[in-house]
Amino acid sequence: MSAADRRARLVAALAECDLDGVVITTLVNVRYLTGFTGSNGALVLPREGEPVFLTDGRYRDQAAEELPDLAHVIGRDLLAGAAQSVTHGSWGVETHVLSVDDHARLNDLVGDASLVPAVRLVESLREVKDPSEIDALRTACDISTQALQWLVGQRLEGRTERAVARDLEHRMLELGAEAIAFDTILAAGENSAIPHHSPTDRLLAHGDLVKVDFGARVDGYHADCTRTFVLGRADDWQREVHAAVQESQAAGLELFRAGAAVADSYAAATSSLDASGWLHAFTTGLGHGVGLQIHEDPFIGPSHAGKLDSRTVLTMEPGIYVPGRGGVRIEDTVLVTSGAPEVLTTMTKDLLEIG
Amino acid sequence: MSAADRRARLVAALAECDLDGVVITTLVNVRYLTGFTGSNGALVLPREGEPVFLTDGRYRDQAAEELPDLAHVIGRDLLAGAAQSVTHGSWGVETHVLSVDDHARLNDLVGDASLVPAVRLVESLREVKDPSEIDALRTACDISTQALQWLVGQRLEGRTERAVARDLEHRMLELGAEAIAFDTILAAGENSAIPHHSPTDRLLAHGDLVKVDFGARVDGYHADCTRTFVLGRADDWQREVHAAVQESQAAGLELFRAGAAVADSYAAATSSLDASGWLHAFTTGLGHGVGLQIHEDPFIGPSHAGKLDSRTVLTMEPGIYVPGRGGVRIEDTVLVTSGAPEVLTTMTKDLLEIG
Repeated sequence: MSAADRRARLVAALAECDLDGVVITTLVNVRYLTGFTGSNGALVLPREGEPVFLTDGRYRDQAAEELPDLAHVIGRDLLAGAAQSVTHGSWGVETHVLSVDDHARLNDLVGDASLVPAVRLVESLREVKDPSEIDALRTACDISTQALQWLVGQRLEGRTERAVARDLEHRMLELGAEAIAFDTILAAGENSAIPHHSPTDRLLAHGDLVKVDFGARVDGYHADCTRTFVLGRADDWQREVHAAVQESQAAGLELFRAGAAVADSYAAATSSLDASGWLHAFTTGLGHGVGLQIHEDPFIGPSHAGKLDSRTVLTMEPGIYVPGRGGVRIEDTVLVTSGAPEVLTTMTKDLLEIG
Repeated sequence: MSAADRRARLVAALAECDLDGVVITTLVNVRYLTGFTGSNGALVLPREGEPVFLTDGRYRDQAAEELPDLAHVIGRDLLAGAAQSVTHGSWGVETHVLSVDDHARLNDLVGDASLVPAVRLVESLREVKDPSEIDALRTACDISTQALQWLVGQRLEGRTERAVARDLEHRMLELGAEAIAFDTILAAGENSAIPHHSPTDRLLAHGDLVKVDFGARVDGYHADCTRTFVLGRADDWQREVHAAVQESQAAGLELFRAGAAVADSYAAATSSLDASGWLHAFTTGLGHGVGLQIHEDPFIGPSHAGKLDSRTVLTMEPGIYVPGRGGVRIEDTVLVTSGAPEVLTTMTKDLLEIG
């Protein structure tokens, strides 16, 4: 689907909301609707007439190359530029992201037009991926899987969390990632109990649980994968906790199907943890959409009222965290289809004993 | 200066603004005022009484470790948690970042208290760095300089922009950077004319201008450095353009002194470009503060009414960009002192002919 097709879908949504247009100021949404990859841009999209893209002088040439079909306005003040095209009628603005001050300023600038909330309109479109997006996500997940498979074949004992994380990141870049998707979490021993641990100079030691949460970015699309393994032979407690997480993850993931209620996968994963007696040690979110952002709609939770659509990509990531002792998380990036869910991060989920 | 000292300075500023407290929701400002390095947090800071820090369950242990002296509230809904401590009086909120929707929600939650804009209060404090911040910036700049010095000693001809950028980034990590400060710009030949070019598979060739804009991150603090060199012998045009930028950069940087007007350094750098006949080809910003963010206050411009303070750290980065032909930018991260400006990115600024 081209950027123009995406804009056409948004224009159709504007008609449903009875809006005369929308001013898109959230950068990732601008990228989705135009293909622009720079760090500053906005889009004015009227229900009738031509859209206008705005950026600053740094991106003059890049905009011409990436968006040949769109009228450009180059200037330092994007809001003032946008207001030139918003002269009357009822216009949507992204009040879930737009700051109070920018909103007030735009309101002053648009004269007779009125601004109304157009909340998560583009985020909602972004939940369902088109084939080019799925290709990028698939590539990012393949690179991530290959990098982790390489890592578990290395000698890790006696090295620092920080050095091992750096090697994994470097491997993803060598394999073709444009960047890492987010700062790698690599946590050994008692640190694995910290859900979002930043790698330290702690040495990886025999007997440690090692949790690694990482991913590659390709064409702006993020992979998100977590595995937890043991250096040496796992003890009974490590096996028990890992098995509980693996069962929970499988139970939740099984319901990532088109038409299934989002809340049902939450119920399945958490019921499994409850049955194994570990629900009290699950302290994080269970999963989230992934795409141009590492965390995006839909967010998996008990009160989510929606159903999953085919071609939505999201994560399932239950965990058990026991402060001072250790933790296990297993996370996949998963493509929802009309049939069985397709796991894009294909690394084995069985407990690996390595090193 | 400890986080508690920074909070004390902010409380003093609240008194001047006649505020009963402030709700800090901008993550980087929360970090500055607490030391918290996670990805989700808020701070309620009353003018009288104890501050309250808020985060979610993922960061329970990390918050206890990083912020032992602060009361914590753990929960998924930070705004609701914050509102518990905001019961009456006049409270500042960061309306320059806080979204319209979050502001409306907080306003509903705080009952009899009134919310008023407290714009850039913390950003203003952050302009002047304390010794620990300067140490981190100095280390980040040292690592950046060492990495670039290493890079220009490598054989670069025939390699892709992407591969060379990756090597530079890897070198910074090997030298102790916790991360790269931002996506490296590495642009060869005609691509050097694009101010913010993303590295491609273009091969570096004999005779190319090669512009590299990059930096390391250390303890959350960013380095920002640009150099432009030539592969092989520079031609007359390349020498002319490089000299014009080098002179402009020196002229602007010379005025990075305590008590100097920000606008004066802008005037000096642009007058120099005007004198050499290249002002028309300067299409970007001239410089910005750097610290916990890669771009932060103060931003150098002709209409900035303020003066520079000692211990402010900022960049000076004039450039000349000729579409289709090439471009040159030279940028340093600079510490303002009561005497001569101290350039933290100590790599030579003379035109290097390498490879």
